[in-house]
Amino acid sequence: MIHDGFMNEALAEARKGQSEGGVPIGAVLVKDEEIVARGRNRRVQSGSSVLHAEIDCLRQAGPVAACRGAILYTTLMPCLLCAGAAVQMGISRVVAGESETLSGERWLLEAYGIEVEDLDLEECKVLMRTFIAQNRDLWDEELGLSSSGKDSLKDL
Amino acid sequence: MIHDGFMNEALAEARKGQSEGGVPIGAVLVKDEEIVARGRNRRVQSGSSVLHAEIDCLRQAGPVAACRGAILYTTLMPCLLCAGAAVQMGISRVVAGESETLSGERWLLEAYGIEVEDLDLEECKVLMRTFIAQNRDLWDEELGLSSSGKDSLKDL
Repeated sequence: MIHDGFMNEALAEARKGQSEGGVPIGAVLVKDEEIVARGRNRRVQSGSSVLHAEIDCLRQAGPVAACRGAILYTTLMPCLLCAGAAVQMGISRVVAGESETLSGERWLLEAYGIEVEDLDLEECKVLMRTFIAQNRDLWDEELGLSSSGKDSLKDL
Repeated sequence: MIHDGFMNEALAEARKGQSEGGVPIGAVLVKDEEIVARGRNRRVQSGSSVLHAEIDCLRQAGPVAACRGAILYTTLMPCLLCAGAAVQMGISRVVAGESETLSGERWLLEAYGIEVEDLDLEECKVLMRTFIAQNRDLWDEELGLSSSGKDSLKDL
């Protein structure tokens, strides 16, 4: 049972993605208590590596003005691509379902003044855990990022 | 006269974008001395705020494996969204046409081990200068980012 209805909607997007053979990560964009855009990771489905859930969601939100000040709900803590997108689009707050599967780039969001909440939801973690156990290759490709960059950032 | 043929191709994409009424920023992705993907800023044309030139280019490159180790040529130093994308996709080198119009996020690229070259080309600068003088509103919307975030990053 999830306390936040918007995260339930992001989870519904994640499950839709999984049913299409994709990576089960979903996102919704909320403004004035209403969902203004929805997205899911479509990397496998589209063959396009940049179509992470948050990018898919933000691209459907339309102009920058539609995103500015909005809240981005995502089932997994954003990676560098999606964190950069959130900053660039003027998102005010990111609510993540979990950050156990991927610690993500919370630091970048916060450095640019975006509030971040990690709901640490078992439902989100189980979804990813089950998916990764069955699709190790897809997940390894999803991660992409080598560890060297992260290490070097500690020196900044 | 530009010394690098690939940057000429990125410039051709930028001009194509401008002829469509868009922001004149172009990009090409190069692997093994061949262009494997091309893109241009389509924010105005598509109404989608995330379709920066580099994102448009990378989304057409296909799977992560196609991007890994490739060189991204872009007429303007990447913003945070596009720098994050370059890191996430495993780009090895970014060649920017200029960084006078937008200083961009060179630091993030370099922090993740991406080589960055700034060609500081007059042709790229003039293209943007002329566009901005005639389309101030489009450029202001393009920037999006408030200065507060950048300031806070200095403390990292």
